[in-house]
Amino acid sequence: MNEFSYKLKVFYEDTDSGGVVYYANYLKFFERARTEAIAEIGLSNKKLLEENGILIIVKSCNIEYKKPAKLEDQLEIKSSIILISNTSFKMRQKAFRDNELITDCEIHLVIVDKKGKPSKIPEILKKKLEN
Amino acid sequence: MNEFSYKLKVFYEDTDSGGVVYYANYLKFFERARTEAIAEIGLSNKKLLEENGILIIVKSCNIEYKKPAKLEDQLEIKSSIILISNTSFKMRQKAFRDNELITDCEIHLVIVDKKGKPSKIPEILKKKLEN
Amino acid sequence: MNEFSYKLKVFYEDTDSGGVVYYANYLKFFERARTEAIAEIGLSNKKLLEENGILIIVKSCNIEYKKPAKLEDQLEIKSSIILISNTSFKMRQKAFRDNELITDCEIHLVIVDKKGKPSKIPEILKKKLEN
Amino acid sequence: MNEFSYKLKVFYEDTDSGGVVYYANYLKFFERARTEAIAEIGLSNKKLLEENGILIIVKSCNIEYKKPAKLEDQLEIKSSIILISNTSFKMRQKAFRDNELITDCEIHLVIVDKKGKPSKIPEILKKKLEN
Repeated sequence: MNEFSYKLKVFYEDTDSGGVVYYANYLKFFERARTEAIAEIGLSNKKLLEENGILIIVKSCNIEYKKPAKLEDQLEIKSSIILISNTSFKMRQKAFRDNELITDCEIHLVIVDKKGKPSKIPEILKKKLEN
Repeated sequence: MNEFSYKLKVFYEDTDSGGVVYYANYLKFFERARTEAIAEIGLSNKKLLEENGILIIVKSCNIEYKKPAKLEDQLEIKSSIILISNTSFKMRQKAFRDNELITDCEIHLVIVDKKGKPSKIPEILKKKLEN
Repeated sequence: MNEFSYKLKVFYEDTDSGGVVYYANYLKFFERARTEAIAEIGLSNKKLLEENGILIIVKSCNIEYKKPAKLEDQLEIKSSIILISNTSFKMRQKAFRDNELITDCEIHLVIVDKKGKPSKIPEILKKKLEN
Repeated sequence: MNEFSYKLKVFYEDTDSGGVVYYANYLKFFERARTEAIAEIGLSNKKLLEENGILIIVKSCNIEYKKPAKLEDQLEIKSSIILISNTSFKMRQKAFRDNELITDCEIHLVIVDKKGKPSKIPEILKKKLEN
């Protein structure tokens, strides 16, 4: 399975007074990585909303915190698709510092229309997710 | 001039690895205080948008950081209106820990319609701001 | 099992341009509720660190997003302890709007010392968690 | 005066339900740009703390919001130093979308030691800031 790599640096805004990245902020990192992965295949959240009338929303996520990350650490988020159905898909997203696994996450994403109702994955997105 | 008081506790999310409240987060505290001040006079951002078609947006702010605040500090935000015109108003917002001034801010707010164009302050809001 | 209730209002800072609470921010709400639950039993993160030399950190969490929450919604976070061992405990945390379940989360928390090594739950905390 | 350029994309985390970048988040963008500017001259917040025992903290800032930025906008932060004294310096930081000025900020930064007391700018930093 192809993996998409997204790199980031940990800034003050990401840390807390425990001296580490605040636990909620990994979800921000993962969302940035998903957005860039979609950009990589020529799409965007904006386009999907304006041209296809759909939004990709998070249905659930399951995160494990393995090691703390710290100020000015360089992190790499590796994202891969592990399952695609007609209306949803699952991703595995991991944060690494060098080759050390920091955080491991499985995320279930669903497609909804502008009213929030479940919707089919547009063909253009589905084909690209499958490759 | 009447002052509106809003109290909050500093949580992990508000701090950074320097061990203090991250500088951008005071703007969140001030915005919470403004929202609660508006609720106090029987209005809300939601109502103003739905019933009056207007939004209150920040045009500028000028902040001074006097002392650091820390995890689990109890802060009090004191807000007062210092100027009202037909389309905008100015507020002074201060964060205190006990009686010590932590952060001092002057904020210029303007009224815009749904398209972002400058708009008059609705009478219902203006009257209440003046008292 | 006793439930601890913590109430909050959704502010602009909590929302995103999809018009709903941003998915990472529920973890902030849950952390605020845990902090206030600990305050309720006469303890605090600060005290536990200074007097007992320990930190409570999140090992994993499993979140389900059931319904979106919106600007100025009043949410209630209900938290309960579902398991206590010598070095960790599990909590169930749910966000409600009126009686509607918005987000449901299971969180595994572990006790570590200042160097990040697993540590026993201090007796004073364990006893209070058990009641 | 030399300008340092830092580019970023607006993600969901940066926006609010008004459909625009939340006003506090520009301070995050500016701080990221300052951190990268310091990295550009071979230094870092971490190094300055560990090797020189100093922190750079924000004393005040004065922000003007000119235009709203939106989801997936590409922003460029242009930063320049406008004044250096023995213990502090001032920066001008502007956010642009294409060539349009979005936000304009003047920030006063001071050097403090680990106890929070004002301290001289280390020679290594001062020399580099002056160029």
